[in-house]
Amino acid sequence: MSLSTDKKLHFDNDYMAGAHPEVMRRLAETNLECTIGYGLDDYSEEARNLIRTACDAPNALVQFLVGGTQTNATVIDALLRRHEGVLSADSGHINVHESGAVEHSGHKVLVLPTRNGKVSADDVENYLRTFYQDDTYEHMVAPGILYITQPTELGTLYSLAELEALSACCHAHNIPLYLDGARLCYALGSPAADFTLPDIARLCDVFYIGGTKCGAMFGEAVVAPNPERLPHFFPLVKQHGALLAKGRLQGVQFATLFSHHLYEQIGKEAVALALQLRAAFEERGYIVAVNSPTNQQFFTLPNAVVDALLEVATFEYWGPRGETESTVRFVTSWSTLPEDVDKLIFALSQLSH
Amino acid sequence: MSLSTDKKLHFDNDYMAGAHPEVMRRLAETNLECTIGYGLDDYSEEARNLIRTACDAPNALVQFLVGGTQTNATVIDALLRRHEGVLSADSGHINVHESGAVEHSGHKVLVLPTRNGKVSADDVENYLRTFYQDDTYEHMVAPGILYITQPTELGTLYSLAELEALSACCHAHNIPLYLDGARLCYALGSPAADFTLPDIARLCDVFYIGGTKCGAMFGEAVVAPNPERLPHFFPLVKQHGALLAKGRLQGVQFATLFSHHLYEQIGKEAVALALQLRAAFEERGYIVAVNSPTNQQFFTLPNAVVDALLEVATFEYWGPRGETESTVRFVTSWSTLPEDVDKLIFALSQLSH
Amino acid sequence: MSLSTDKKLHFDNDYMAGAHPEVMRRLAETNLECTIGYGLDDYSEEARNLIRTACDAPNALVQFLVGGTQTNATVIDALLRRHEGVLSADSGHINVHESGAVEHSGHKVLVLPTRNGKVSADDVENYLRTFYQDDTYEHMVAPGILYITQPTELGTLYSLAELEALSACCHAHNIPLYLDGARLCYALGSPAADFTLPDIARLCDVFYIGGTKCGAMFGEAVVAPNPERLPHFFPLVKQHGALLAKGRLQGVQFATLFSHHLYEQIGKEAVALALQLRAAFEERGYIVAVNSPTNQQFFTLPNAVVDALLEVATFEYWGPRGETESTVRFVTSWSTLPEDVDKLIFALSQLSH
Amino acid sequence: MSLSTDKKLHFDNDYMAGAHPEVMRRLAETNLECTIGYGLDDYSEEARNLIRTACDAPNALVQFLVGGTQTNATVIDALLRRHEGVLSADSGHINVHESGAVEHSGHKVLVLPTRNGKVSADDVENYLRTFYQDDTYEHMVAPGILYITQPTELGTLYSLAELEALSACCHAHNIPLYLDGARLCYALGSPAADFTLPDIARLCDVFYIGGTKCGAMFGEAVVAPNPERLPHFFPLVKQHGALLAKGRLQGVQFATLFSHHLYEQIGKEAVALALQLRAAFEERGYIVAVNSPTNQQFFTLPNAVVDALLEVATFEYWGPRGETESTVRFVTSWSTLPEDVDKLIFALSQLSH
Repeated sequence: MSLSTDKKLHFDNDYMAGAHPEVMRRLAETNLECTIGYGLDDYSEEARNLIRTACDAPNALVQFLVGGTQTNATVIDALLRRHEGVLSADSGHINVHESGAVEHSGHKVLVLPTRNGKVSADDVENYLRTFYQDDTYEHMVAPGILYITQPTELGTLYSLAELEALSACCHAHNIPLYLDGARLCYALGSPAADFTLPDIARLCDVFYIGGTKCGAMFGEAVVAPNPERLPHFFPLVKQHGALLAKGRLQGVQFATLFSHHLYEQIGKEAVALALQLRAAFEERGYIVAVNSPTNQQFFTLPNAVVDALLEVATFEYWGPRGETESTVRFVTSWSTLPEDVDKLIFALSQLSH
Repeated sequence: MSLSTDKKLHFDNDYMAGAHPEVMRRLAETNLECTIGYGLDDYSEEARNLIRTACDAPNALVQFLVGGTQTNATVIDALLRRHEGVLSADSGHINVHESGAVEHSGHKVLVLPTRNGKVSADDVENYLRTFYQDDTYEHMVAPGILYITQPTELGTLYSLAELEALSACCHAHNIPLYLDGARLCYALGSPAADFTLPDIARLCDVFYIGGTKCGAMFGEAVVAPNPERLPHFFPLVKQHGALLAKGRLQGVQFATLFSHHLYEQIGKEAVALALQLRAAFEERGYIVAVNSPTNQQFFTLPNAVVDALLEVATFEYWGPRGETESTVRFVTSWSTLPEDVDKLIFALSQLSH
Repeated sequence: MSLSTDKKLHFDNDYMAGAHPEVMRRLAETNLECTIGYGLDDYSEEARNLIRTACDAPNALVQFLVGGTQTNATVIDALLRRHEGVLSADSGHINVHESGAVEHSGHKVLVLPTRNGKVSADDVENYLRTFYQDDTYEHMVAPGILYITQPTELGTLYSLAELEALSACCHAHNIPLYLDGARLCYALGSPAADFTLPDIARLCDVFYIGGTKCGAMFGEAVVAPNPERLPHFFPLVKQHGALLAKGRLQGVQFATLFSHHLYEQIGKEAVALALQLRAAFEERGYIVAVNSPTNQQFFTLPNAVVDALLEVATFEYWGPRGETESTVRFVTSWSTLPEDVDKLIFALSQLSH
Repeated sequence: MSLSTDKKLHFDNDYMAGAHPEVMRRLAETNLECTIGYGLDDYSEEARNLIRTACDAPNALVQFLVGGTQTNATVIDALLRRHEGVLSADSGHINVHESGAVEHSGHKVLVLPTRNGKVSADDVENYLRTFYQDDTYEHMVAPGILYITQPTELGTLYSLAELEALSACCHAHNIPLYLDGARLCYALGSPAADFTLPDIARLCDVFYIGGTKCGAMFGEAVVAPNPERLPHFFPLVKQHGALLAKGRLQGVQFATLFSHHLYEQIGKEAVALALQLRAAFEERGYIVAVNSPTNQQFFTLPNAVVDALLEVATFEYWGPRGETESTVRFVTSWSTLPEDVDKLIFALSQLSH
């Protein structure tokens, strides 16, 4: 993790700044209003309705939580029966970077192999089919849901066809499909996206629309197009410590993000900057480590180039520093300015290759 | 819960508005800055240092979480060994209004009787002493910590002598004392308070300084004067879904609250308004249901009075509505205006008793 | 707990000896047979069928577990949804003497007042009705099942009418009724019993037929007359560490207990001895502390009498020893010999009162 | 799982029969004695002392539990702090065949690659070293203990040197080493064993001596040579539903197994028969699938051979049946008769290869 944050360009991650200025403006405007708590206020209801409309899911349960790890742990706990576990890419956030939050609630993460950060419907199908062929399956943790992220940890995207296949496979085996959309705006805003938010709502049983990394100060919106998928979700959210007293804060934020297409626009602009950055690296012959069409870009660079860029920008190593070259990640977000990208490209252009 | 929030005076609770204007101002000012996440930024460090100073606890571990239920569940989970439970007033928030968050982490709440919302050192001593006299105590849940709230759910305060006694009793039996300070500013700001923040830091093993109800937009600051009381707390906070990505948001807020004595001032002003309200009710011969010196006031009123006041203000029934009279609660906070209290008193004065 | 076990009469509890001789004989006879594990063998199937017949519940799920605490924790975990807790008498075994096993699985025990060790349908009805009238009920642990014991911890019995009322109340509120039958043979064998095993199967959603205290070496048989009440119970039993590899051991034992009315007979004989003992104490004017019609008898005796009887027998204090008199418990079981009771009564008769 | 158990030879597993005849004899002899419960009786104390002596660990905590899954879940829960997980071979029993019992207690299983069913000290060292080099390690589950089995799931053995290396590695990183000895007698009884029980007690922080598969009717003996490694273990055993009321049953059994070298002898005889079987297969040119020196033997056989042998014996497929050949497992135990092995070899010799 890069510690220097002074006067440099920042490409470490997509949660370095506060809230999108429009979101901040609305929080300030409504600050002194008094509303009832726990999401029962009008702003929250407005936000829920805007999300239902954007998802083309008029009956959807929409519940706001605070952060991603807590959202994953709560939803997975809600969807699984006690003897079940959650299928996930081995590189999935819940399997690696959530300090065992899923296991804290009593459930095992069942790992699937990944290619480009994605699991395949074939691998899921194979897991589900062979599981019940094993004579001892009742001594094993039953696969109870499939967890995927869109975009993935590597910034890659499931295509519509891939989502359709995963959804079909899950439903053929009667297990819910849950999509972690921590960075969903950057999926929807990618030129490579051949799916829409209504597609996701149609194919997934539960998903969440990320706020924290997508323009909100904080907050995630869990959506269950069919609310019967998440019965008694409210007390479970409370039990998981995920219920904000001042629920209207999330209402105000999501209502802003889902007005005037702000959520989409945030994604589009940030992805465009990321792809501009990628083009600049590619053009100069650097290795693109992952073929990512979203706001995370991964390059394998000579250490000298890494060191030179670290003079002007902060960004993360992706894995340990190598002996002669290292893979690094650059992330854009709503808070990335076009001139930041220009400056970084300029710095790159100054380097002898 | 009162649903009308339009154009009325609001005394429902202390989390109806957003953030104290000064806190909001600082959030807006710093909004576009980029910092590293998870509380490793300079604002968070500044806030931790200000809190250490205010507590006269220079080595304290200070960790920010988001909300009260999650803070209680996480701290209690950190302090207890697996075979232990937490002693609490039967009316304690963790025993009643947290949807079983403590049990979700595997621990039992062991209830103590209360008087005026408080547990007595005698009752704790008695519990701890007789527990180990029972031949079958190894088949029972061992009392592992004592949980208290200051002020209590009823707005009452433990005096310094009572805190000293509880602390001495806990330490004689080698169990930590944990204080829930969700409304701590309204304790410290009470004219009845004969203790200081350093007293609390001296007597408690762990406590939290409430932000959500005390001027912050959200956030609670856990303090362990001796950091060895909370080893490996950071990953546990993450595991509980209680770690905010944009940790600096809490840093900015607590740094503001602990500069220029704002935290104290918020408490003092709100309590003064609450006591003014109480005096008005008392003066007119209404029954004060709880002798509370803080920002929550409880009155038992004829239903006609309740109904008349509900025309101009929102507030909560405390328990079910009675046949002829009901107990109700009025809460002030940093967002209560002196003129709100004046208007309510005026409305009261218009009623024939 | 009485430590002396040498050459004395033993009335401490009902798990001091091994297995009923008939059970032991069958275990020895079948010892070298090889069968498949985990209860899939023919003995287990035979036992399940005998139990189904005895319960007049031909479709019942019958699953064998090893001990009582584990059975309660597993069944309760199976029946509750994550946001729910279990209603229980405050004196219930799960609330006091199971080291927090229910909480270890994430659930709260919600306590009800008791009279004579029993909860009343009125109290249950009142709890369930008022719970949902509370505006904040979604912040509280929802009552998900009712747990009762038959006989109770005090040896008392729910009458058929009381069971009918509890069952009706539970089902009106759509929550399962679960009956802990750790000592069920001593309920069924009481002259005061106005209910049968089929009554219990008709009125309870799940119950267990105790083996450990009722003639088996170990083992408890969980019965769900409607197996849909316990879906996926087998892997949950495994997950709770409650699945015996050599499942046929429980099969052999329960098949023996449920052949030739042995289970009933064990109960009847032990209760008859207990009541004979009680008559002897009553006759001599001693205080019967609990009006128990089963194998546990409680007397409040002068300490001199207690001390004199401790010369010839072992038994337990029920609560702390008093200054001049103490309450003690005498327990009979299948292993109590008529001559043991005679000897104790003789010893009693020798005392000057 | 082979279902036929009638008149055939049985090599399915090592828990098909009841108890070793000597164990059964002692259970029958002591059956009507009355003792106090929960392992506080003299038989249990005798067994604990015999085990301490056999382990050359005079101060060891020895606690009896009922079965393997429950023992693993309880010990692991006792050893881990809340933010930690358990390192295990990916093929480890806790990771595959315990229905998520470890996760039910809130802990993640962290998998290591295996060779011949074993983990290497190098892989453990590498895991532990690189874990703390990752900047984000506080967001990941910390490795808290190492879990190994001896013999492994594949019947292979860690040599003394391998155990020394694993122990040294664990202790250098300050994490306990826990050994699952479900089949420990078959490790100790192997001609390939270059370690002793005192070696295991010297190198492991906690281990368990399997009873269920090694001559007992049921029961496992947890040993912590330094009892401070398992503080408050008794209530945790109770909480996990693993405390047998009639604790003396385990005392009687383990006292028998650890008298007259019965435990050793059981292992030696069963392993000798297994190796005799292996020699017969090898001699005839069949493929030995695993180089196992213990009571489990794995062969890859033409399906015709498998089918022919299934006519006379029961045994398990190891993985799915192949198209032309399949891997199968033969297991011997204390209940395997020399003539059973002779008969199987005779059957094998009748087959044309």
